[in-house]
Amino acid sequence: MDISTGLGLLAGVIVIATMMLMGGNLEMFVSEHACIIIFGGSIAATLIRFPLSSMLHGLPLGAKFAFTMRRMSQRELVDEIAGMAEIARKQGPIGLEKVEVEDPFLAKGVRFVADGYDADFIRDNLERDRDNFLTHLDEGQKIYRAIGDCAPAFGMVGTLIGMVQMFANMTDPSKLGPFMATALLATLYGALVSNLIALPLADKLHGKLVDEEINRTLIIDGILMIRDSKSPTLVREMLLAYLPEKHRHDATDTVPA
Amino acid sequence: MDISTGLGLLAGVIVIATMMLMGGNLEMFVSEHACIIIFGGSIAATLIRFPLSSMLHGLPLGAKFAFTMRRMSQRELVDEIAGMAEIARKQGPIGLEKVEVEDPFLAKGVRFVADGYDADFIRDNLERDRDNFLTHLDEGQKIYRAIGDCAPAFGMVGTLIGMVQMFANMTDPSKLGPFMATALLATLYGALVSNLIALPLADKLHGKLVDEEINRTLIIDGILMIRDSKSPTLVREMLLAYLPEKHRHDATDTVPA
Amino acid sequence: MDISTGLGLLAGVIVIATMMLMGGNLEMFVSEHACIIIFGGSIAATLIRFPLSSMLHGLPLGAKFAFTMRRMSQRELVDEIAGMAEIARKQGPIGLEKVEVEDPFLAKGVRFVADGYDADFIRDNLERDRDNFLTHLDEGQKIYRAIGDCAPAFGMVGTLIGMVQMFANMTDPSKLGPFMATALLATLYGALVSNLIALPLADKLHGKLVDEEINRTLIIDGILMIRDSKSPTLVREMLLAYLPEKHRHDATDTVPA
Amino acid sequence: MDISTGLGLLAGVIVIATMMLMGGNLEMFVSEHACIIIFGGSIAATLIRFPLSSMLHGLPLGAKFAFTMRRMSQRELVDEIAGMAEIARKQGPIGLEKVEVEDPFLAKGVRFVADGYDADFIRDNLERDRDNFLTHLDEGQKIYRAIGDCAPAFGMVGTLIGMVQMFANMTDPSKLGPFMATALLATLYGALVSNLIALPLADKLHGKLVDEEINRTLIIDGILMIRDSKSPTLVREMLLAYLPEKHRHDATDTVPA
Amino acid sequence: MDISTGLGLLAGVIVIATMMLMGGNLEMFVSEHACIIIFGGSIAATLIRFPLSSMLHGLPLGAKFAFTMRRMSQRELVDEIAGMAEIARKQGPIGLEKVEVEDPFLAKGVRFVADGYDADFIRDNLERDRDNFLTHLDEGQKIYRAIGDCAPAFGMVGTLIGMVQMFANMTDPSKLGPFMATALLATLYGALVSNLIALPLADKLHGKLVDEEINRTLIIDGILMIRDSKSPTLVREMLLAYLPEKHRHDATDTVPA
Repeated sequence: MDISTGLGLLAGVIVIATMMLMGGNLEMFVSEHACIIIFGGSIAATLIRFPLSSMLHGLPLGAKFAFTMRRMSQRELVDEIAGMAEIARKQGPIGLEKVEVEDPFLAKGVRFVADGYDADFIRDNLERDRDNFLTHLDEGQKIYRAIGDCAPAFGMVGTLIGMVQMFANMTDPSKLGPFMATALLATLYGALVSNLIALPLADKLHGKLVDEEINRTLIIDGILMIRDSKSPTLVREMLLAYLPEKHRHDATDTVPA
Repeated sequence: MDISTGLGLLAGVIVIATMMLMGGNLEMFVSEHACIIIFGGSIAATLIRFPLSSMLHGLPLGAKFAFTMRRMSQRELVDEIAGMAEIARKQGPIGLEKVEVEDPFLAKGVRFVADGYDADFIRDNLERDRDNFLTHLDEGQKIYRAIGDCAPAFGMVGTLIGMVQMFANMTDPSKLGPFMATALLATLYGALVSNLIALPLADKLHGKLVDEEINRTLIIDGILMIRDSKSPTLVREMLLAYLPEKHRHDATDTVPA
Repeated sequence: MDISTGLGLLAGVIVIATMMLMGGNLEMFVSEHACIIIFGGSIAATLIRFPLSSMLHGLPLGAKFAFTMRRMSQRELVDEIAGMAEIARKQGPIGLEKVEVEDPFLAKGVRFVADGYDADFIRDNLERDRDNFLTHLDEGQKIYRAIGDCAPAFGMVGTLIGMVQMFANMTDPSKLGPFMATALLATLYGALVSNLIALPLADKLHGKLVDEEINRTLIIDGILMIRDSKSPTLVREMLLAYLPEKHRHDATDTVPA
Repeated sequence: MDISTGLGLLAGVIVIATMMLMGGNLEMFVSEHACIIIFGGSIAATLIRFPLSSMLHGLPLGAKFAFTMRRMSQRELVDEIAGMAEIARKQGPIGLEKVEVEDPFLAKGVRFVADGYDADFIRDNLERDRDNFLTHLDEGQKIYRAIGDCAPAFGMVGTLIGMVQMFANMTDPSKLGPFMATALLATLYGALVSNLIALPLADKLHGKLVDEEINRTLIIDGILMIRDSKSPTLVREMLLAYLPEKHRHDATDTVPA
Repeated sequence: MDISTGLGLLAGVIVIATMMLMGGNLEMFVSEHACIIIFGGSIAATLIRFPLSSMLHGLPLGAKFAFTMRRMSQRELVDEIAGMAEIARKQGPIGLEKVEVEDPFLAKGVRFVADGYDADFIRDNLERDRDNFLTHLDEGQKIYRAIGDCAPAFGMVGTLIGMVQMFANMTDPSKLGPFMATALLATLYGALVSNLIALPLADKLHGKLVDEEINRTLIIDGILMIRDSKSPTLVREMLLAYLPEKHRHDATDTVPA
């Protein structure tokens, strides 16, 4: 699990709640008015912006993946694949049946090899999976970014609507306060949705997109080498060469001065 | 039909109407003043920005295409073309006369083949059609984006004009409210036109532009291969190779974990 | 003449005048104060930003070219040049003397051929003309864009100066209105100069710059081929190959569905 | 030590303190409310935006490196490496044991040579160090930039929360002042954190990142040449050729007119 | 001298002074408060942003070069160098001793040739001069741009500080005016420093940087060809070929229609 996404959301909620409680009560900040305009407006604009299928696939996949994280670094992934290459070499493809693999994409590839499918079928099938996955993750990233870009504008729209109603009905300026407070909530909601949720999520998904493209291509290449009974040393070397320079080393090492 | 564009516009209208009705009546938000400055100003700036012919072709084509969607994925399109190649091989070009084709661009190409026009004529004619279409779609996208960029500024202009009039005539501050409400409407209109309509439409047209360039080039190549009586298998293979990687697979497959 | 630039400016003036008259009188919106800061400030910043020669050449050339338009599409231009190639082939260069050419750049080239200058002189002379023209048009575009970028800031400066004076002299808050109205005019002027005039003009000049680079290079190449008595068919074919794809066809054709 | 970072921070604190003291007292500007939203909000958004490990490594490394500066220019570094090459040639690798090196990265490399490790091990080890270091420095730069981008938004959020509370509880408009003052502090804090600290630090780290990539690659190449007992002249020449043009000369020379 | 920079600054001062005098007196706009925050804040942020040496070299060099302009166009420079090549060819390098050269960089090169230094020394020395000069000019440009980017933010900071003090001490709303006037001055100063001085200067320096890179490289190449006693015709031809297309012709020619 990507602990920092959850931690960040939790921290954000605590900070905002603390802020609100310090000078009043939470109720003061609940506004269905503001909810409707921010969420309704953002969803409407996003529907116009993207095809329906992008929204149905991209939004939930993005939400799910923002909280998911590989247990392994790319280096460990290479090690695991090399380990399987050793098993496959010693015990034949049949030996892979007993291997337990956590990553579902890698597991699928291993199953294909164990079941003796031919290389072309494996490549086609896995590449289709990878491409679909990356397409949907990219759609998810773009949708969250689009929401982050338009939410503040809809916040302003909500506040403007509230102010127009307030000014139009204004008879006693001394009663202006509570109306103004409500009107401002839409701007507040828009700023929070954009800066605390949508834009950070889009940035995190972008980072994961870059990583997953490397990971899944690496898995496909590794699986195909295992199927060809390549030696574990060769598998490791070729997969490492595939990594961008900075990932060849374990990024969790201590930082040199 | 591209259902999400219509759905988004409908959702936007419902959201805004709900917002307005929650705190008053719709009348309060009708302002010919604001309409004139937002639409008049945006049209004026767009006329200066683009040649007249771009506006006449680009605006309506853009509006039309934002609501139109291919029934078929690019993969299905390849399948359909391969199917026609089979018919043309078995029954000769004459067999294509009875084929019913939904896409008007593909239909035109098929008609040319059935009528026995020579390859150069078909290519020239279809490429001119494709290029004109893409040029106008691109103009449409740019015009909607330009409107989305300047509408908020004209909204501010409208509000400023209203405020100048209000301040200049101000004698009794207690009557300031309704004037202020009217002045703010221009800013509200500008924000809505930009964020709910123009910018999302420009983004959707951009997406369609990318897709249609591939689709129509693919159709032209396919039609020419049909005319040359290429085998259906070859047609399919060559057209698939033409697709960008992510489109080679059917994007509506279930998403892998 | 580029009718859309004039039409747009006219539309803009009408829209703004209508807006102003709807809630008061035009006088209310005349402010020498605002004129001085917007035009003075923009000119000052532009003088610092660019060399003096750029301003002297770029500003008027830009203003002139925003309203000018070729009568002919690039395809028609190729046809006209091919027509002259035919005349030159049949009647010799001398036959070109009687040809009437509207475009001054093409006319200059034709005159050179008719007068029998050698190819190197013609190329040098025409290329210098083209390069100078493009340089100045580009300067013009950059200057209008720079004005469009800084005019709103100077509008704010003008409003701030007005507000400082207003607040510093404030004794009776009820008289605050007319002063505030005057102060806001600078912001209004800045927004209009930027969004209705300078930025749209810069965009239009950018479009013309791209077109004129192609047109004039095409004319130079055509003129040199005429001088070498190339066949009209060859001239047309080589010039068409020179055009970017989308211009090879007549963009005024009807738009395919 | 990079004296300008400390100097700038000190200058900033003095300027802000002077400003605050000129019209009142410092206490007036202390607001835990504003601290919580700016720091809490920025940290929350950054946690969502980046993986946890990036934050743990990048933030402190960035803070440390913003204040650190190489004593030597890149030219002097080349000279020092060439000097060691001379020692290694005359006295053998063992002679390097007594050399005192300030830079810890260079020192590590020299130790490896003196201890007689083989070239592959040295290259692998140093490249891993360099890559980890650059990765973390880049993460640091991105985190400071992300904070600089979202801090003003959280400042606005804090001010909005304060204003909502103020308006909601408003009974006596004459008491509005102190509440407004407190609400504005969040915007003030956000602007200062962004413009005085986070964005300038991100820019400085970006500059150092570019320099350190060159420096450390240069050191690795130099160390490996020393290990191969290359002649000092060759070492100097090859390392200088490696530098981008502008660094081949000593940038601290007097500026020509 | 680059007359437009001075003219622009003068025009700016006159415009602002006129504006201020039209509605009051200049005194009203003098605020040490605003000066401290704009200049202090910008300097502090710039110190953090750049190394100290960049500031010490870049700021004064930038200020000096914004007002300096070559007397000659690049074409005239080529002519002057070709003229010297002729002298050197007829009278030997010694003949160059009597040549009077205005440009200090060219003069230095000519002196080197007259004094009979060898080609490698001349190239090294002049290239170091050029590179140092360009590095510092680029630093200057970046510093002015950074100041232009952060000055408005510090203006807002100054206004916020003023408003917090005003609101915190507010007892009598009728006295709010003068305080508000003072607070707004910081925003005014920030906008002026950014839009009238820093950003235009950065743009002008960017233009000069592009020109000087060509000029000085051209001078170095010319000087080395003179030293090799190349023929004046060859010198001119090779140097002209070096120029970007648009500079090969004299840009001060009349503009063609």
